[in-house]
Amino acid sequence: MDLNKLKEEVFKANLELVQYGLVLFTWGNVSAIDRENGLVVIKPSGVSYSEMKSEDMVVVDLDGNVVEGKLRPSSDTPTHLELYKSFKEIGGIVHTHSTYATGWSQAGIGIPILGTTHADYFNGQIPCTRDMNEAEVKGAYEKETGTVIIEAFKELNPMHVPGVIVKNHGPFTWGKNANDAVHNSVVLEELAKMAFIAKTIQPNASMNSLLTDKHFSRKHGKDSYYGQ
Amino acid sequence: MDLNKLKEEVFKANLELVQYGLVLFTWGNVSAIDRENGLVVIKPSGVSYSEMKSEDMVVVDLDGNVVEGKLRPSSDTPTHLELYKSFKEIGGIVHTHSTYATGWSQAGIGIPILGTTHADYFNGQIPCTRDMNEAEVKGAYEKETGTVIIEAFKELNPMHVPGVIVKNHGPFTWGKNANDAVHNSVVLEELAKMAFIAKTIQPNASMNSLLTDKHFSRKHGKDSYYGQ
Amino acid sequence: MDLNKLKEEVFKANLELVQYGLVLFTWGNVSAIDRENGLVVIKPSGVSYSEMKSEDMVVVDLDGNVVEGKLRPSSDTPTHLELYKSFKEIGGIVHTHSTYATGWSQAGIGIPILGTTHADYFNGQIPCTRDMNEAEVKGAYEKETGTVIIEAFKELNPMHVPGVIVKNHGPFTWGKNANDAVHNSVVLEELAKMAFIAKTIQPNASMNSLLTDKHFSRKHGKDSYYGQ
Amino acid sequence: MDLNKLKEEVFKANLELVQYGLVLFTWGNVSAIDRENGLVVIKPSGVSYSEMKSEDMVVVDLDGNVVEGKLRPSSDTPTHLELYKSFKEIGGIVHTHSTYATGWSQAGIGIPILGTTHADYFNGQIPCTRDMNEAEVKGAYEKETGTVIIEAFKELNPMHVPGVIVKNHGPFTWGKNANDAVHNSVVLEELAKMAFIAKTIQPNASMNSLLTDKHFSRKHGKDSYYGQ
Repeated sequence: MDLNKLKEEVFKANLELVQYGLVLFTWGNVSAIDRENGLVVIKPSGVSYSEMKSEDMVVVDLDGNVVEGKLRPSSDTPTHLELYKSFKEIGGIVHTHSTYATGWSQAGIGIPILGTTHADYFNGQIPCTRDMNEAEVKGAYEKETGTVIIEAFKELNPMHVPGVIVKNHGPFTWGKNANDAVHNSVVLEELAKMAFIAKTIQPNASMNSLLTDKHFSRKHGKDSYYGQ
Repeated sequence: MDLNKLKEEVFKANLELVQYGLVLFTWGNVSAIDRENGLVVIKPSGVSYSEMKSEDMVVVDLDGNVVEGKLRPSSDTPTHLELYKSFKEIGGIVHTHSTYATGWSQAGIGIPILGTTHADYFNGQIPCTRDMNEAEVKGAYEKETGTVIIEAFKELNPMHVPGVIVKNHGPFTWGKNANDAVHNSVVLEELAKMAFIAKTIQPNASMNSLLTDKHFSRKHGKDSYYGQ
Repeated sequence: MDLNKLKEEVFKANLELVQYGLVLFTWGNVSAIDRENGLVVIKPSGVSYSEMKSEDMVVVDLDGNVVEGKLRPSSDTPTHLELYKSFKEIGGIVHTHSTYATGWSQAGIGIPILGTTHADYFNGQIPCTRDMNEAEVKGAYEKETGTVIIEAFKELNPMHVPGVIVKNHGPFTWGKNANDAVHNSVVLEELAKMAFIAKTIQPNASMNSLLTDKHFSRKHGKDSYYGQ
Repeated sequence: MDLNKLKEEVFKANLELVQYGLVLFTWGNVSAIDRENGLVVIKPSGVSYSEMKSEDMVVVDLDGNVVEGKLRPSSDTPTHLELYKSFKEIGGIVHTHSTYATGWSQAGIGIPILGTTHADYFNGQIPCTRDMNEAEVKGAYEKETGTVIIEAFKELNPMHVPGVIVKNHGPFTWGKNANDAVHNSVVLEELAKMAFIAKTIQPNASMNSLLTDKHFSRKHGKDSYYGQ
C-alpha cells in the first residue's frame, strides 16, 4: 500500500472530524493501518488542525516505534495499536471527545440500543468499559486503555459493534478504513444524543431484539438489501 | 403530470432535508405521486446527497415495479406505497431520522400536543405506532411498517394529522405534495424538541382542547384567516 | 415620524429574527408604533421572509383598520394593538415561537429569575399568562390574548419586565422601538435556555433578590453605570 | 511589554469569544496584564463587537485608574483587578455568560469532574462561589465578586483550576495570557455541557481520582508528555 496515500486519507479523515463538529481544538485523532507492512499512520500529538498538513502524519510500527515523520505521534497511539493487534479486520480507528458520547461515558453507562438508527450500524448496545485499576492507570495507561476495550469485546464481534465508550473518557470507533471509522464516529454521536433524549422522556425505553436483527441484517451481510 | 417536473420536485425536496438539518448521510427519503397515472417518484437507496442528480430519482408503480430509472429505489418504498394507497389525498411523503422526533419514537410515546405551534399544523397528538410482531418484522417488513401507520390512523384524518412516529424508528410526514411534506417534517422536528423541553420542565404539562381547535381552524378549512 | 423609515425598521427587525434563529418559516412578527399619529406598522400575514420587502409592511390604526399596504396584516395584529394601547411607553413589539421560551410556555410556568443575565434585562420572573376561557378563545381571540397579557402586568411595570410568555403559545417581548424589542426577544430565548439547564440540574435553584435589584439598577435608571 | 501589542491581543481574544459562540451582544470581556508595568488592558463597557477596534481597548492601572483610552472600561474591571492582584501567575482573564456554564452557576453547584476531558485542563471540580451578602452586593460589588472568587481558591492552585463559576452569575476563566484564558473559557463551556448530559443520565456519576491525576499530569508539569 502507498504510505503517502494512507497519510492523505488519515489527514483528510482528521479534518472531517472538525467539519462534523466532533472535535474542539486538538481533541481527537484518526489512524489507519497498512496490514501488509504492519505500519500505522496516525495524527501527530497536539498539532492544530488548521496548521496540520498531510506530511505531518506519523508512521509507527505495531510496537510503537516511529518509522517516518518528524513529529511525536498522538499520545493515544498505544491504544490504537492494541486495537489493531486484536481486531484483525479493522483498517481505521477514530477517537474523539464528542459531546453526547462523552456524556454517556461520564455517566458510566453503555449507550442502549433503542432504535433502528442504532441497529443499522451497531448490532446491540455500545458498551462502556470497566473502571481501570491503579496498576493500569499508573502503568502503561494508554496501552491498558486498549486492554479494557478489548476485554469489553470478549463476546462481541467488533465488526458488528464498531465502537465503544471508555469510562469517564470518551468514544473510540473503527471500521474497514479511516473514512468508515469517521462515519461510525458521526453515527455514534448522533445515537448518543437520540438515546439521551429518549431516556430523558422515558427512562424505561427499550427495543425489541427482532427489530435489531432485522435492521442490522438489512444493511450488513449476505442478505443485505440497502443501497445500490 | 410531467414526470421530469415531479423528479425535479422530489430531488429538490430531498436536498431541503439536508438544508434543514434533518438528515445525516443518506438517512432520509422523499417521494411524490402522480395520481393520474398511479406513478410514484422516490429517492434512490443509499445514494449520497452531494452526488445525487434529479435524473437519479426512481419511478415505480403502486405495486413497486420500477418503471423508470437505473438505480434501486429507497428501501422504504413499500412503506410509501402503502400510505399512498390508503391516504387518498396525500401527494408527497417524507421519512427522516430527525433527532428529537426519533427520540420520542425511541421512547415509544406519541408527541403530545402542548402548544399552538403544534395545533397550527397537527390537530392533536402525533401518534406513535404499536410494536410490530414477529410475522410483520420477518415478513414484508417495509410494507408492514405502512400497515401499522395506517392502523394508527383508523380514527384520525391524515390531512389533519399529517405525520406519525414509527416506534423505535422515526418520523414519517406527508402533505399535498413533496414540498408540503418537507415543511411538515421540519415542523414535526421542532414540535418534538419543544415538547421535550416542556415535559422535562413540567411532566404534567397539557393543553386545553379549546385552544387546539381554535388554532387548527384558524389555519385550515373554510373559516381559516391566516395568510394572504 | 416618517412611515417609510418605520417600515424599513420593522422590515429589518423581522429579518433579524431569522438571523438570530428565533423563527422558522413565517412564525414570528414585529411591529412598531408611530405614537404621534397613532399608526402601527406590522409584518403581513404568512409571507415568506425571503420574498418579503420593506414596502410589504402593513400600516394599521389602533382600531385595526388597514391604512396603507396591499397585504393583510399579521393575524396577531389585535394582540399588538392591545399592548400598544395599554403599555404607553413601548415603541415596538415582537412575537416569536422561539424554542426554549415556547417550551416554558407549554409547561405553563413563568421563566424564573435565576441569574444576573436575567436581572440585567428583566427585573423579576418573566410571567406566564393564565388559561384563556371559552368566551375568550371563541370570541375575539387575538385581542383577548392581549387582554390576558395586560392582566399579568397589573402589578408589574412593562418597562422593567419587557416580555411575557403566553400559556401554551409563546413569547411576546417589547421595547422602546422594534430593534429593542428584537434584542429582548433574543435575550428571553437565551434566559429560557439557561433556566431550563439550571432547573434540570437543580430543581430548587433560586436567586437572592438583592442581586436582582443590583443588576437591574446597574443597567437601568438613574444610577446605571453600564455602557458608555 | 508593548501596550499596542497587548491591545491587539485583547481585542482579538474578545472577537474569538464571538466566534466560539460564547457571547451574545456585548456579554463578555477579556483582559490581559503587563506585569512589569502593572497595567491591565481590558474591553470597553457595552461596545458592540462588530464596531469595536483594537485601539478602543482601555488601559487601567491596578487601582482601576484609566491610564489610556477614551472609553469607559468594562464594568467588571474591578473583578479582573482583584484576580490579577491575588493570582500572581495569571496573564489573562475572560468573563462570559456562556449558556451551560451559566446554567450550572444558576443551579449554584460547582461543575463536577466526571471525565478526562475535564481532568486534562482542570485538576478537580470547577468551584462555584458562595452567596454574596448584603454588604458585598450593595458595596463595591464588582470588587467583592473578585473577593468571593479568591475565597473559593483558598486551598486551590488557580493554575491547576483555571476557572470558576460565580453563583447566579457566570464563569470566569484565566490563563498565562488572553489567548490561554479564552481557550479555557471554551473548554469550561464544553465541560459544563458534558457534565449536564452525564448528570441527567446518571445523577450519581463520579470519577476516580487516580484518573484525574493521571490526565492532569499527562498534560501539565514536569512529567507531561502530550503535544510536541
